[in-house]
Amino acid sequence: MQFAGSHILSVQQFERADVERIFSVADQMEPYAHRRRVTKVLDGAILGSMFFEPSTRTRVSFGSAFNLLGGEVRETTGFENSALAKGESLYDTARVLSGYSDVIAMRHPAEGSVAEFAAASRVPVINGGDGSNEHPSQALLDLYTIKSELADSGRGIDGLRIAMVGDLLHGRTVHSLCKLLCLYSDLQVVLVSPQELSMPESIVDYLRAAGHQVVESDVLEASIAHVDIVYSTRIQEERFSTQAEADLYRGRFRLNQDIYTHHCEPNTVIMHPLPRDSRDHARELDDDLNDNPNLAIFRQTDNGVLVRMALFALTLDVVDQVDAHARDVNWYTQRRF
Amino acid sequence: MQFAGSHILSVQQFERADVERIFSVADQMEPYAHRRRVTKVLDGAILGSMFFEPSTRTRVSFGSAFNLLGGEVRETTGFENSALAKGESLYDTARVLSGYSDVIAMRHPAEGSVAEFAAASRVPVINGGDGSNEHPSQALLDLYTIKSELADSGRGIDGLRIAMVGDLLHGRTVHSLCKLLCLYSDLQVVLVSPQELSMPESIVDYLRAAGHQVVESDVLEASIAHVDIVYSTRIQEERFSTQAEADLYRGRFRLNQDIYTHHCEPNTVIMHPLPRDSRDHARELDDDLNDNPNLAIFRQTDNGVLVRMALFALTLDVVDQVDAHARDVNWYTQRRF
Amino acid sequence: MQFAGSHILSVQQFERADVERIFSVADQMEPYAHRRRVTKVLDGAILGSMFFEPSTRTRVSFGSAFNLLGGEVRETTGFENSALAKGESLYDTARVLSGYSDVIAMRHPAEGSVAEFAAASRVPVINGGDGSNEHPSQALLDLYTIKSELADSGRGIDGLRIAMVGDLLHGRTVHSLCKLLCLYSDLQVVLVSPQELSMPESIVDYLRAAGHQVVESDVLEASIAHVDIVYSTRIQEERFSTQAEADLYRGRFRLNQDIYTHHCEPNTVIMHPLPRDSRDHARELDDDLNDNPNLAIFRQTDNGVLVRMALFALTLDVVDQVDAHARDVNWYTQRRF
Repeated sequence: MQFAGSHILSVQQFERADVERIFSVADQMEPYAHRRRVTKVLDGAILGSMFFEPSTRTRVSFGSAFNLLGGEVRETTGFENSALAKGESLYDTARVLSGYSDVIAMRHPAEGSVAEFAAASRVPVINGGDGSNEHPSQALLDLYTIKSELADSGRGIDGLRIAMVGDLLHGRTVHSLCKLLCLYSDLQVVLVSPQELSMPESIVDYLRAAGHQVVESDVLEASIAHVDIVYSTRIQEERFSTQAEADLYRGRFRLNQDIYTHHCEPNTVIMHPLPRDSRDHARELDDDLNDNPNLAIFRQTDNGVLVRMALFALTLDVVDQVDAHARDVNWYTQRRF
Repeated sequence: MQFAGSHILSVQQFERADVERIFSVADQMEPYAHRRRVTKVLDGAILGSMFFEPSTRTRVSFGSAFNLLGGEVRETTGFENSALAKGESLYDTARVLSGYSDVIAMRHPAEGSVAEFAAASRVPVINGGDGSNEHPSQALLDLYTIKSELADSGRGIDGLRIAMVGDLLHGRTVHSLCKLLCLYSDLQVVLVSPQELSMPESIVDYLRAAGHQVVESDVLEASIAHVDIVYSTRIQEERFSTQAEADLYRGRFRLNQDIYTHHCEPNTVIMHPLPRDSRDHARELDDDLNDNPNLAIFRQTDNGVLVRMALFALTLDVVDQVDAHARDVNWYTQRRF
Repeated sequence: MQFAGSHILSVQQFERADVERIFSVADQMEPYAHRRRVTKVLDGAILGSMFFEPSTRTRVSFGSAFNLLGGEVRETTGFENSALAKGESLYDTARVLSGYSDVIAMRHPAEGSVAEFAAASRVPVINGGDGSNEHPSQALLDLYTIKSELADSGRGIDGLRIAMVGDLLHGRTVHSLCKLLCLYSDLQVVLVSPQELSMPESIVDYLRAAGHQVVESDVLEASIAHVDIVYSTRIQEERFSTQAEADLYRGRFRLNQDIYTHHCEPNTVIMHPLPRDSRDHARELDDDLNDNPNLAIFRQTDNGVLVRMALFALTLDVVDQVDAHARDVNWYTQRRF
């Protein structure tokens, strides 16, 4: 695809070469995100951050990514009641707000709303989540993390063995990740969930149509024995009609250091889209894994900044200028990555 | 007036020369607002954006305008309950908050509150709306749009023919616009509204005292036949005691492409302070006008950025320095203006 | 202490030399805070401003302080319900959010929460208030103001005579200030409160153990006759179980210009942590003091910016670089300090 000036709305708009282009640019962003270098390539540019549904981490991650490229951020959070309550169309909202910035990152509770907004916007729009529909930058950062974690052992995504664990029915992130994985070849995918919360058939079919081997299971230990990645997810309690119903499943698949030691291959990487549920009755990833160097969950969120920087640099077409506007960091930076 | 260091509180503080000075500076801001050039003239300056009443577009417009001049924005949104609930006076609030920025843009639900705040502020304050009282930057951007739209046909504001349509009783923007129009000469003003929502007598008198010709009507088609500008407004439902009462008037004067084609002179410009009410029972400006090149409603909001940049540059006295701190934009910018 | 990379969590982490180092750096910040000079020493750095409890003035003061050093601010306000409601631990929240910025300023309603967050953070954390526990930057700005106000008469903090007046039981600021005062010698401290709202015994003991002379009183006039500083506080009504109970004490100790003239020594300085309660039944500091040049309450809040700039410059270790990244201010600045 042509990135300059394009909207980023869905993982399905990407071909494999597009994903690899994004990852290559994300790699280039590392010295800036990791505070060794400062770039001002977007000095003077404005990001319109429109989070019509609350979100701390995605919102701040987008904003920091734009700041790290030298740009400014103008934010709107919470539902913009006033204008919509007065009968304004999403078309009008988009025409107006897109006059105030150079690019927009947007989250909205209604499926399809971000694409509708983008159609009327005069600047590129990046989908930061539209209800249960799409959240492409999350899927990209997950896949980027898989790539990065495996790189140390000299391997790529082709041939990957991955177990996805938990609420596979409601988890938007695993759905999107599976779609991206279909751009690669020869994967072994183990889907571990209570039967009632299993991966939608359409996604399983999609994986198989891509030539991947898919196994479904409701037993944790055996399923994670021969994989490169364990991708754990939280029971999405907000999607159940009652807490009691969610409680039926919570705590069903718990990974802790003891299970990891006895069942996983050395260096199996542990991922999670976060937040993880650390309450006693849940604990899908136990706190005793915090010192396990293969727990990649915080590298994952850090990678989100890299991927979002890449998306901004690509849609605003400044990739080739980033390094020319750079200098060394001049303040104290702890080793924290 | 002397702009440097002054508060901008009311359209009534301006003489014609002041308005023309603001518009001349707004013209100078165009390359920056339209993303051909970047200026850093206010690099290091801080705008205190204090929106004690919610507003997305006015707030973001002010913030983006300040960013476009190179400055930073520190925002407060929502009613600042804590200090006021603890008995703090507006005087104290102003003394404290004005120590944190170089200029303040403020909206507050209470009439006169922004002027009271300004009296205690140690930095210039720009009124972003104080209840139903004043919203001077909106009136300025409306008049600036009229000037810009007519400029193509080589004409100025003197001699203008304008129809104002809709809820002329409650519409703060038409009241303020009328006051500004009194600085010009030989206007023909057609006021189209349900009789119960007609323009307050004091404003009509004010227009006539300025030598303008004023006609009042409750019929749309004939009223827009010989004007340069149709300025449509929404029924301000929030000012009615019941929705049922607002419904009596909603949808009374609808302009669509068919009516435009059959009744208006070619190139009659359509304006609206936005948001327009696009629900079926309202539609004062139909969506089928969206492709009409004379629909100026989004150029209006874009012009708001120019006018606000001008107000900042004038009150902070950097007009003559703007171009000296400029360079070309280095990122991808669509043609969107 | 070693400031570079350190958290600022409590006044009790400071020795006298640390406080003096902070004040010396705060002095150095004056040309920038008072808008004579602009520095860009933190150009490219990001402050994560995490106010999980609402606060306008402390939040904006931290943000403006960071902007004045040239850095960017990414803000979160209000309680971050989503992730915590989904069972996320404060450890996880800290690990994630600290990946998005270079330093964090945080307020949180729960005592000890900021320290717990800091323990997991990968960047320095400055406590902006954790419930009724600590608010170190407030205590520092109070003491810095005392130092500054006395400097004109050639005196220092040693030997200071100070009266603290009002709700000494609940006032977090007077507790912290007393702790800092214990780093100095030969103070005379008069504690004026209703008996039910007197200073906690532990703090009185702490002052006496430091060699200071402490007198407790419930009469205002005699207590402020021979002091350098009158530090007045508001009845902390939010800490009482009923408004009626708070009303018993409100308005008990009122200082106005008449009392000041008749009882205080010339040049006695009046301070208050703000907000002051200006309602008729309270008025611990009357509005008729507003023109008294010894009313230092707004210089106090201005000093908050200096102290917070100093804390950022110290923890990010750029003190020696501030002036090298500076230039003169190029916009209109009123005389307002």
